[in-house]
Amino acid sequence: MAEIAFIGLGNMGLPMAANLVAAGHKVTGCDLVAGLREAAAKAGATVTDDPAKAVAAAEIVITMLPAGKHVRAVWSEVLPKAKPGTLFIDCSTIDIESARAAHAMAKAAGCPSLDAPVSGGTGGAKAGTLTFMVGGASEAYARGEPVLAKMGKKLVHCGADGAGQAAKVCNNMILGISMIGVCEAFALAEKLGLSHQALFDVASTSSGQCWSLTSYCPVPGPVPASPANNDYQPGFAAALMLKDLKLAQDAAAGTGATIPMGSHAAQLYALFAAMGEGGRDFSGIINMIRGKSE
Amino acid sequence: MAEIAFIGLGNMGLPMAANLVAAGHKVTGCDLVAGLREAAAKAGATVTDDPAKAVAAAEIVITMLPAGKHVRAVWSEVLPKAKPGTLFIDCSTIDIESARAAHAMAKAAGCPSLDAPVSGGTGGAKAGTLTFMVGGASEAYARGEPVLAKMGKKLVHCGADGAGQAAKVCNNMILGISMIGVCEAFALAEKLGLSHQALFDVASTSSGQCWSLTSYCPVPGPVPASPANNDYQPGFAAALMLKDLKLAQDAAAGTGATIPMGSHAAQLYALFAAMGEGGRDFSGIINMIRGKSE
Amino acid sequence: MAEIAFIGLGNMGLPMAANLVAAGHKVTGCDLVAGLREAAAKAGATVTDDPAKAVAAAEIVITMLPAGKHVRAVWSEVLPKAKPGTLFIDCSTIDIESARAAHAMAKAAGCPSLDAPVSGGTGGAKAGTLTFMVGGASEAYARGEPVLAKMGKKLVHCGADGAGQAAKVCNNMILGISMIGVCEAFALAEKLGLSHQALFDVASTSSGQCWSLTSYCPVPGPVPASPANNDYQPGFAAALMLKDLKLAQDAAAGTGATIPMGSHAAQLYALFAAMGEGGRDFSGIINMIRGKSE
Amino acid sequence: MAEIAFIGLGNMGLPMAANLVAAGHKVTGCDLVAGLREAAAKAGATVTDDPAKAVAAAEIVITMLPAGKHVRAVWSEVLPKAKPGTLFIDCSTIDIESARAAHAMAKAAGCPSLDAPVSGGTGGAKAGTLTFMVGGASEAYARGEPVLAKMGKKLVHCGADGAGQAAKVCNNMILGISMIGVCEAFALAEKLGLSHQALFDVASTSSGQCWSLTSYCPVPGPVPASPANNDYQPGFAAALMLKDLKLAQDAAAGTGATIPMGSHAAQLYALFAAMGEGGRDFSGIINMIRGKSE
Repeated sequence: MAEIAFIGLGNMGLPMAANLVAAGHKVTGCDLVAGLREAAAKAGATVTDDPAKAVAAAEIVITMLPAGKHVRAVWSEVLPKAKPGTLFIDCSTIDIESARAAHAMAKAAGCPSLDAPVSGGTGGAKAGTLTFMVGGASEAYARGEPVLAKMGKKLVHCGADGAGQAAKVCNNMILGISMIGVCEAFALAEKLGLSHQALFDVASTSSGQCWSLTSYCPVPGPVPASPANNDYQPGFAAALMLKDLKLAQDAAAGTGATIPMGSHAAQLYALFAAMGEGGRDFSGIINMIRGKSE
Repeated sequence: MAEIAFIGLGNMGLPMAANLVAAGHKVTGCDLVAGLREAAAKAGATVTDDPAKAVAAAEIVITMLPAGKHVRAVWSEVLPKAKPGTLFIDCSTIDIESARAAHAMAKAAGCPSLDAPVSGGTGGAKAGTLTFMVGGASEAYARGEPVLAKMGKKLVHCGADGAGQAAKVCNNMILGISMIGVCEAFALAEKLGLSHQALFDVASTSSGQCWSLTSYCPVPGPVPASPANNDYQPGFAAALMLKDLKLAQDAAAGTGATIPMGSHAAQLYALFAAMGEGGRDFSGIINMIRGKSE
Repeated sequence: MAEIAFIGLGNMGLPMAANLVAAGHKVTGCDLVAGLREAAAKAGATVTDDPAKAVAAAEIVITMLPAGKHVRAVWSEVLPKAKPGTLFIDCSTIDIESARAAHAMAKAAGCPSLDAPVSGGTGGAKAGTLTFMVGGASEAYARGEPVLAKMGKKLVHCGADGAGQAAKVCNNMILGISMIGVCEAFALAEKLGLSHQALFDVASTSSGQCWSLTSYCPVPGPVPASPANNDYQPGFAAALMLKDLKLAQDAAAGTGATIPMGSHAAQLYALFAAMGEGGRDFSGIINMIRGKSE
Repeated sequence: MAEIAFIGLGNMGLPMAANLVAAGHKVTGCDLVAGLREAAAKAGATVTDDPAKAVAAAEIVITMLPAGKHVRAVWSEVLPKAKPGTLFIDCSTIDIESARAAHAMAKAAGCPSLDAPVSGGTGGAKAGTLTFMVGGASEAYARGEPVLAKMGKKLVHCGADGAGQAAKVCNNMILGISMIGVCEAFALAEKLGLSHQALFDVASTSSGQCWSLTSYCPVPGPVPASPANNDYQPGFAAALMLKDLKLAQDAAAGTGATIPMGSHAAQLYALFAAMGEGGRDFSGIINMIRGKSE
């Protein structure tokens, strides 16, 4: 069993850390918020509010933070305090430039590193069924794999430094686009007098099939577990989809890629958020497409 | 076995008519083009260039024509020549307003009618494996079903008059949008140094999964049968996708629906077609997204 | 002075016809709505509800109708009743295909013809200060010019049959696009803490200058007469801008032109209209851009 | 006359510094590139490659650099070397977050500061006819005004820290959008058989009027001095317009503003640049809209 520092005990980090404890690892949890430290302590972790202390004895350091600037700041602070050879894993969803900068800092400090953003939401974090998209050297991946496997059920080694973030941003851009496409199709069907079920029956078995339709249908009925059946409670909040699409936009702007539909989707979620609906599930954008205020 | 008039013996209509002959129906094929009539005659159909003659003895009249104005013109010409009670089936992909106008003409003439656009392309037409999306009254559907079943392997009764066209236009709009989304994702992945296979492995088993990715992948490799492996020979030509998206646009404009992404997709395919690439498979738009001339 | 039939006495047609009466012409007004005929009679016109009667003695026939189908229907009905050589002028804003079809009908009937859509709104119609964008043969233009000059202050002969409609649709597409651009700039400026007046002062004298900014500013203050100062009462209703952008969309779809921004603007006005704001001035779309329900 | 340090002697900075020398100021020019220092020396400036030395004796420090990170780096390096009270003026076009960070650094060092991006291009820099959009405190503006006036002919004090950058980014977003709108209108007019001159005559005197049309017309003919008459040699390169639209995108993403058309315009210029045309004048995008490779 490994000695692990886990920095960032929010909605995602706390249950992830708890799963590591449950798997028998010795976990030191670190967060600035006292309540989160208490919760981690209850789950069996040693806790501290000082990142430097957290990493001192660690073999593996995991960070789960809101944005690239936080990851850069924390890694830059704690790398000098860590033992050379400590494996650094960032599970945050952040911009690729920051991810690569973090890898470079780790390398300079003699520490192997992985970027390993997740999908699966807080439900997956609790159940230990997250998907990890991982970037970094093969040796680092080999070391990290057994630990990540305690927090998720699927791991994909996507390539070198930053490839995990790249895979997540590309996947979620497809998701954000296809969801709006599905919403427009249902809204148009309504105007044409075509029932939800009829469109679902055709498209789910045809070339319009997509996860947004068949696993997360934005109208109530065809997929009983989708947020549409629960007044669009997330699920995956529109504000988070907007965050991911902004990361796609940054990645495209920084590399000269062209993402006309991805960029358009970002603006539509931005408009939805500006209307005060950022806390709704992202499939709730169907109401905006219909022209309804709610 | 039924006496069937089949009007419109083009790339789709000819093999469809041939399948009806092969199933034992008595088919009278009609087209203005002599070569197509000859081909239909070879396949075992009686032929004529006069639609009025074609329908005189028919129990069922099937039309397969390029656009709504042709369907309106032909039905308006032949309905008065048909026996009352003849079943009219239009298999063309046309605008919903024309489809409904055709239904109304048939009703006025005492003839039941169906709109039954297909998907599956010329390959499906030859193999008799088309999907039919059907709109019209239940009694008409019950009469048409056994005949359509000789030309396709899947039939969906989508609802009342026009519902078949509505289902097709909505499904294909999702397809047109999601394909560009997938193309943008691969083009962005390339810029980020993420391999095609890695993105495919992640997205095909995650929330980015869609038919455009997993059955029709726009880069060579992951899906060996996709047109990307064959220099983007169609398959489904970009010009036809553009036609379908224009139908979506018309349907939205006519009913007050809002389709921001569908409309954007239409413009991107229009640009691709304007660049002279309308004859390529629609997945070839990835090259335009990359900024490549070919 | 000429004998003129004026068909279509709505918000625009009535004051235009009244200006012709005031200029000394003998005007026969025709409309299906009794109240409008009464108003035209009060203004000094002879009136009838029968278009055929209206045109029988006319030297010039003017139509002012809602859409292409109405123009086609009316011209098709009255051309056989008109004296050969009667000048037909359509002042409606309609699709170019219908405009050209109407010209062709007139030609077949031996009547010269003009398409002459206007800008300037109901205010310009009353004041006789409309702008006419005119398409048609030079001889027809020469005959129509003195009559049009009684209803407007500016006439531009744009070219052959349909050129008037083409000029209007292209101009209004620029307008629809630039207005949203200006609205986005003000909304962004607000978020950045830049005052309306400061942005106006910079852009109105710089490369951002446009009619939408300097004559029709979408925020109150800088241009006192703009609808923004009057709670976005039209002016030019968003629903009418949407109608014109749909004409642009049709024109582009029919000719293979690509209008990505024009099409995007159409969708944004469609969304604004779907939210119930189609009766507002089109500059009121700034509130939607801000994410406000009103 | 003032003692001025001028850091960044590129295409814009060099002629601006030369104008300050010509006005009698004592200028120390600083750049890493030897050739640029030589050119500045020829123009009468003292030169150095060490920013710290350049600012030591200065009353005013001016920077003209490519991007926000350069401005942050240089100000952070030289502020500690400058005398308290030295006026810092950044004339670069950069992101607003960096501009505000630079102001904050200056304030912390006891130095007043201005953000003062320009428009007018290299031609305006040489002729001393630039427009300055200035943000910062009134006292700082009062001190900077006479110096800026030697390099430009128009100064607008737009507001507090960052307001200059905000005004520029908002203005240029309108410009980028309206130019594409005008290009689409001309391309559509071509398809409709409407001449360039006829569209120009209508729109330039109507509601479609905008600087992109009347001062910088994207087709040859109507405005003889526009780049369209010179094979789209810039002028204002598409790559620079793209840079400005990315700044708008960043500003919107950072503040929660929605810029659907601005974002769309950014993607279209990105596509144009990806096609290898970033060095063309931004009005050359009309060729892409037409579907032409050149």
